[in-house]
Amino acid sequence: MTSPCPLCAPTGEDVLYLSDLYRIIAVNDPAWPGFCRVILNQHAREMTDLPIAARTEIMNAVWATESVLQDLIQPDKINLASLGNVVPHVHWHVIPRWKDDSHFPDPVWANRQRDWAKKPAVDPRDIAAKLKARLG
Amino acid sequence: MTSPCPLCAPTGEDVLYLSDLYRIIAVNDPAWPGFCRVILNQHAREMTDLPIAARTEIMNAVWATESVLQDLIQPDKINLASLGNVVPHVHWHVIPRWKDDSHFPDPVWANRQRDWAKKPAVDPRDIAAKLKARLG
Repeated sequence: MTSPCPLCAPTGEDVLYLSDLYRIIAVNDPAWPGFCRVILNQHAREMTDLPIAARTEIMNAVWATESVLQDLIQPDKINLASLGNVVPHVHWHVIPRWKDDSHFPDPVWANRQRDWAKKPAVDPRDIAAKLKARLG
Repeated sequence: MTSPCPLCAPTGEDVLYLSDLYRIIAVNDPAWPGFCRVILNQHAREMTDLPIAARTEIMNAVWATESVLQDLIQPDKINLASLGNVVPHVHWHVIPRWKDDSHFPDPVWANRQRDWAKKPAVDPRDIAAKLKARLG
């Protein structure tokens, strides 16, 4: 683990939704409109290090984020990933993908394949409002 | 969607566990020992296209697979991903990772960084036995 863990002591996150267990943030990377992360507030390495109830609550947040992105920007695909090789603190990437995006159909971590002509726009505040409507 | 969908009409899969809802297969890629996939039997594009109960059952299979791999080979990290850009039929990659593997800490879809000297060995039949013990 990186010490101190950057997800235990975050700085400059654009938090869209906050619960006791997790936060949902906008990544705000101009390369990937709508990219969000669901980040566990406490430190744990793997999903299976958490009790079932916490796993379920985190996945409900992932599904809510996926649904909100579907509502707002209708991507061609949603990519979900919990990797954590660099920062082994549970966090989920929720990444809207389009057939004409810079890497499709490869994962965003593969090599760039093309310029992306018509990048969709999405306001993180709209994501936040819809997350609040879904998650309470 | 690819037509016909290769995950609706699979051939040559090494099925480790089969339920009504999903199957768990060994990828059997020599580059990635222990790599498993949890594949929905029916066709659906996104996890949020499924009822909550089905999502929960699939994630339980993902957690079981993660736990079995932890038991058997103690990877440094487990990577979980539902991408589906190439084949938009719900499937989860469960990928054991080691700090000295060929791509660490990058995702397996990024560029290779090094040779992998001491690749762990795991028998898919051992994974299958432990999955059956966990999932019934």
